Amino acid sequence: MTKAIDLSTIYGPVCEGMARVEDIFGKLRGMARQDLLPLLGHTLQYGGKRLRPALTLLSGSSFEYQPHTLHPMAAAMELFHTATLVHDDIVDASSLRRGRATINSEWGDGAAVLLGDFFFAHSARLVASTGNLRVINLFADMLMAISSSELSQNLSTMEQRLEYDHYIDWIGAKTASLFATATESGAVLGGAEEEGIQALKAYGHSFGLAFQIVDDILDFVGQEHDMGKPVGADLLQGHPTLPTILFVAGHPQGADLRRTLADGGDVDVVKKAVALIPGTDVITECRSIAHGFVEQALKAINAVPPCPSTQALTDLATYILARSR
Amino acid sequence: MTKAIDLSTIYGPVCEGMARVEDIFGKLRGMARQDLLPLLGHTLQYGGKRLRPALTLLSGSSFEYQPHTLHPMAAAMELFHTATLVHDDIVDASSLRRGRATINSEWGDGAAVLLGDFFFAHSARLVASTGNLRVINLFADMLMAISSSELSQNLSTMEQRLEYDHYIDWIGAKTASLFATATESGAVLGGAEEEGIQALKAYGHSFGLAFQIVDDILDFVGQEHDMGKPVGADLLQGHPTLPTILFVAGHPQGADLRRTLADGGDVDVVKKAVALIPGTDVITECRSIAHGFVEQALKAINAVPPCPSTQALTDLATYILARSR
Repeated sequence: MTKAIDLSTIYGPVCEGMARVEDIFGKLRGMARQDLLPLLGHTLQYGGKRLRPALTLLSGSSFEYQPHTLHPMAAAMELFHTATLVHDDIVDASSLRRGRATINSEWGDGAAVLLGDFFFAHSARLVASTGNLRVINLFADMLMAISSSELSQNLSTMEQRLEYDHYIDWIGAKTASLFATATESGAVLGGAEEEGIQALKAYGHSFGLAFQIVDDILDFVGQEHDMGKPVGADLLQGHPTLPTILFVAGHPQGADLRRTLADGGDVDVVKKAVALIPGTDVITECRSIAHGFVEQALKAINAVPPCPSTQALTDLATYILARSR
Repeated sequence: MTKAIDLSTIYGPVCEGMARVEDIFGKLRGMARQDLLPLLGHTLQYGGKRLRPALTLLSGSSFEYQPHTLHPMAAAMELFHTATLVHDDIVDASSLRRGRATINSEWGDGAAVLLGDFFFAHSARLVASTGNLRVINLFADMLMAISSSELSQNLSTMEQRLEYDHYIDWIGAKTASLFATATESGAVLGGAEEEGIQALKAYGHSFGLAFQIVDDILDFVGQEHDMGKPVGADLLQGHPTLPTILFVAGHPQGADLRRTLADGGDVDVVKKAVALIPGTDVITECRSIAHGFVEQALKAINAVPPCPSTQALTDLATYILARSR
């Protein structure tokens, strides 16, 4: 593994484009009513790393950089991501995100529904503005994949959620589909040949799976201060992720937790598991699975002729594996 | 005014297309998980009259009927409308719609957020499938108009909401923009010349304003049984519509209600107004304003060469003025 580099170095080949994406957000703020500004300012900081727009721009610039379509597409990916976070926080009744009060907790479910819809609308407007039917259809397919799976997950049983395959399908739809759309649309707008488009799509999908698994590991081993939410927040809310799934399947004390989750019961058993999981080999196992997906991402990007942008995509895949927040 | 005709007679020129639109909804149900069916069945009946798809099909068939694009577009308009209803019920914390429990009241805010998003995604998917960039952009513009105004309305003061111009802007964005998109997109997909497209757009906009005003009148004078919600539900929820606005502006007892609404106060004053308004000339005045918008719609449609579909659009505008539910 290469030594850690920071994000702004990795984003180097597209730093100009990243600034233009921020300009699009600035314009959105500029158009908004005065009373909307606190909500917009609040949420446009949610996606602190701007990974999705960076992936779109780096994918595009791995081929031919087309600013007039790549910039709105990159901005759309971030706004759509923000929309899903705002709505997810209603669904999970979350009160904290990145250490700050959520929209639903501070302004109510109603305002959060409307704000999420507003970001959705803006993202659709930006995607339509590219005038590229292929990326418009990619975006629509992604909307379907994410919304269908969110609804299914909401209705799924605990038994289903504790299956590894179910988990991979679920994070594939909710997280990886967004990353894959970011990279695939970048390649399409960059005028790549079909082989390059498929390589970037595969990269984005594997990248997304690895990213989500690392996120789910950090939920257990991260610092509360870095994550901006309590350690084990997902499990405490009754959402099993990969560490929980492996713990329940393989650890001697897993059976206890499985019963508790199925009953929606004893919070002490859940708290005990949250304290126990970081010290088990479940975390090593999770890291190894994430590492496997990063390897797949790197293999995919290797099919594209090397340039500073493909190097950045390689570095980014390594970066997300090593990140601590 | 012509004598009342029923909807299925008016929809005659596009009855085959209306059946195909229902097939699209049937396919959506067929694709869904078993546990989603109660929610889908529940909500796909919300828009009982199917006005928006009918307007798209009639607008298209006023020119050249293109089933492979008109049918998905028409279905998209209904699904998008359904999405907004599901989300609106969260915002208003409504428990009843068309006499049945709302999704939020029966399955919770979270499920309602996701179900609305799911319908929204489906509608975007159907619009993208037309492959027509102009209607894709129309749809995106409509999303922006509706979501921006919903958010603004949510943040507006009672004083603003009690202004006639504010009300017309608000129903223009939340209701008429959907009708105008339905008719304009139908004309575009029907291959109309620019003049015809603009005529249908103007028709849809005026139609939408009239439709909403009649809706707001019926909220006061309709039968609880027909409307499926309590008489005066909007005002009881603190939402002033045209009858309330005219009552507050012109009626001797209006000042009392204005103060109460501004304070979010005395429910007895609101209930008294709900009982009083139907017997005042405020209702006649509202009907006359709605009639004016129908006249504008009829004038717009007169610019299009007459055929059975333009006759149906004429009849439909008259129908919505006379409707009792």
